Amino acid sequence: MTDWGQNLAQMRATAPLVQNIANYVSMNVMANVLLAAGASPAMVHAEEEAAEFAGFTQALTVNIGTLSAPWVRSMLAAAGAASAKGTPWVLDPVAAGATAFRRETAAALVALRPTVIRGNASEILALSGADAAGKGVDAADGVQAAETGASALARRVGAVVAVTGPVDFVTDGTRAFRISNGHPTMPQVTALGCSLTGVVGAFLVGQPALEATVAALAYYGLAGEVAAEGAKGPASFATAFVDALAILTPQDLSAGAKVAVA
Amino acid sequence: MTDWGQNLAQMRATAPLVQNIANYVSMNVMANVLLAAGASPAMVHAEEEAAEFAGFTQALTVNIGTLSAPWVRSMLAAAGAASAKGTPWVLDPVAAGATAFRRETAAALVALRPTVIRGNASEILALSGADAAGKGVDAADGVQAAETGASALARRVGAVVAVTGPVDFVTDGTRAFRISNGHPTMPQVTALGCSLTGVVGAFLVGQPALEATVAALAYYGLAGEVAAEGAKGPASFATAFVDALAILTPQDLSAGAKVAVA
Amino acid sequence: MTDWGQNLAQMRATAPLVQNIANYVSMNVMANVLLAAGASPAMVHAEEEAAEFAGFTQALTVNIGTLSAPWVRSMLAAAGAASAKGTPWVLDPVAAGATAFRRETAAALVALRPTVIRGNASEILALSGADAAGKGVDAADGVQAAETGASALARRVGAVVAVTGPVDFVTDGTRAFRISNGHPTMPQVTALGCSLTGVVGAFLVGQPALEATVAALAYYGLAGEVAAEGAKGPASFATAFVDALAILTPQDLSAGAKVAVA
Repeated sequence: MTDWGQNLAQMRATAPLVQNIANYVSMNVMANVLLAAGASPAMVHAEEEAAEFAGFTQALTVNIGTLSAPWVRSMLAAAGAASAKGTPWVLDPVAAGATAFRRETAAALVALRPTVIRGNASEILALSGADAAGKGVDAADGVQAAETGASALARRVGAVVAVTGPVDFVTDGTRAFRISNGHPTMPQVTALGCSLTGVVGAFLVGQPALEATVAALAYYGLAGEVAAEGAKGPASFATAFVDALAILTPQDLSAGAKVAVA
Repeated sequence: MTDWGQNLAQMRATAPLVQNIANYVSMNVMANVLLAAGASPAMVHAEEEAAEFAGFTQALTVNIGTLSAPWVRSMLAAAGAASAKGTPWVLDPVAAGATAFRRETAAALVALRPTVIRGNASEILALSGADAAGKGVDAADGVQAAETGASALARRVGAVVAVTGPVDFVTDGTRAFRISNGHPTMPQVTALGCSLTGVVGAFLVGQPALEATVAALAYYGLAGEVAAEGAKGPASFATAFVDALAILTPQDLSAGAKVAVA
Repeated sequence: MTDWGQNLAQMRATAPLVQNIANYVSMNVMANVLLAAGASPAMVHAEEEAAEFAGFTQALTVNIGTLSAPWVRSMLAAAGAASAKGTPWVLDPVAAGATAFRRETAAALVALRPTVIRGNASEILALSGADAAGKGVDAADGVQAAETGASALARRVGAVVAVTGPVDFVTDGTRAFRISNGHPTMPQVTALGCSLTGVVGAFLVGQPALEATVAALAYYGLAGEVAAEGAKGPASFATAFVDALAILTPQDLSAGAKVAVA
């Protein structure tokens, strides 16, 4: 049985510098989530410096939540720099199917070979070329409906693909896992999905991509379970969630991870 | 006696997709407020997609808090698209009188016929053409001083105008209401005014504009009253406030709304 | 013995309008911190209005956390306007040494004669021309290592320089103070450093720069000490911290400030 707590312990020992081209809604939450988890976030997205910074960061995440033309140029330059250097990077294709601008940007980023693609079912379906129901940032499709598309996308891109939802599905196109940690309040807090992408980025540093992604998802979901214990609503849940990310130990994760081979 | 809880029940049953061109300060809070209330927020503001998204959103809100030239183009395109399609949209004229750039942008947006204009007294006075005392985002003028200006503005634009403050004033230029729900800590938390604009947008979907606006304001103020009960300061108040938005039921609002015909 | 509580009392009596060209990560937190402290924040950064607004604000702060070309033009125009008018302004050189873009922007802003420069040790070292170890936003250098550089920078620019860390060092190049208020959880919350820059700006209005800066740092650190008492992790700490800024009285600061002449 895999000891997923080891992956958390290694991430914290590394305390990796993670560059995030996030979005305006999630930036603050994502930085706090990464600090609480034990990583060192840097929110560097400007065209004038994103690629330079990607040359020395230990991991990069790219989130298309709030796009604009200069940001797209930054994303492509930074992802290209990371790819060229072999630095792990994660693509978060927020609402990838909603507008033409998003579809085109997501496709251009996929072509730069992300290490991991993390999205909800509608987003992964949109990327895989299938018809997706989601228009906004919420998933209108179930995780199971996206499993075949996720596996095909993983093989085509050579990436790990993580479909997150009530039960997450993670695959490299050959092997696959399901992670059932989590809590229904999590989608009621904005930017928790985006911030998870940052945590996946942090776990990738020096770790095999498939296992690192699974461990990151289990850790994140477990924090949700802990947070729900004393929460009165979505905002007190959000506070308790970030606290839990800091409080949870590798031993807690070893004991609490709900991971199954798919 | 109107049962304002019905408006909340209808909004939650609709769970409307609300597109917000907000500002950098308020985006995260606004998204969380809308999620807690029961709506589905989408923070889509880029020039390349704002108007396309406005073609299928159920409501739009436009906030001029942190302006720039590309954002102004997005605002005009999205508001124009919403207006053309008959989609309800709300204008939040933040600090409308503070700089020439804001005065011009606000005037151009008013010309696109918002369904509702929501601002503090200084902002509504600035829009109505009267002299206003406010320079920053805080209101230096009282709500009562803006009532005549609000009514004239409502008639000129054909919009519902909401002046928010200790006692809110809402009018369509013919009928008017005063709402006395709320708590003095609310202006001590940044972005609660902006976020209220989003909630008004959510209530507008499928509801008459004047009543929907009154109900949204009563609901919001009531959440403030509930939040104040256990709060130690403005940050714990903010957490309790978002929790209260999720916890309050239509029955709570029916019983707790403090609305009077003006 | 200086009564630092007097500086807090004077700031609250003034309730100064503070314009902040902040960054996307910190804007919301900074606005809430300034409101809780008793100031009136305005987050105005657009090229089209930043300099106009700087013409009537009572203090200005400029933070280079998330740069872009239009923002750099706004920063230079606003800082130039404040400098020309004698309005106090604070420079926060976030990650000043990390990329060429940041180094050049920071140097151009320093040339516009900030009243106060506030940064961590790595940032102050980068500005002073010394080699710094920090790449990201976290300080890799200790405060003590930056004291000589800080004093030289203060004399060269004619500014107060504040190096913040476990024990802060503040100097005008002739006199110097050390402030040992604070708590180790503070760097675990993103944007608390940026927000401190706003508080320094608020204290500067009508107060001598060296003493105002020292008082602001002691007040901020004392709030951290109070916040730590009931916090379970970094997020509940952040909530308690903003509450404490509102709750602390001038008398509390008079009694709790830990300031020593350096």
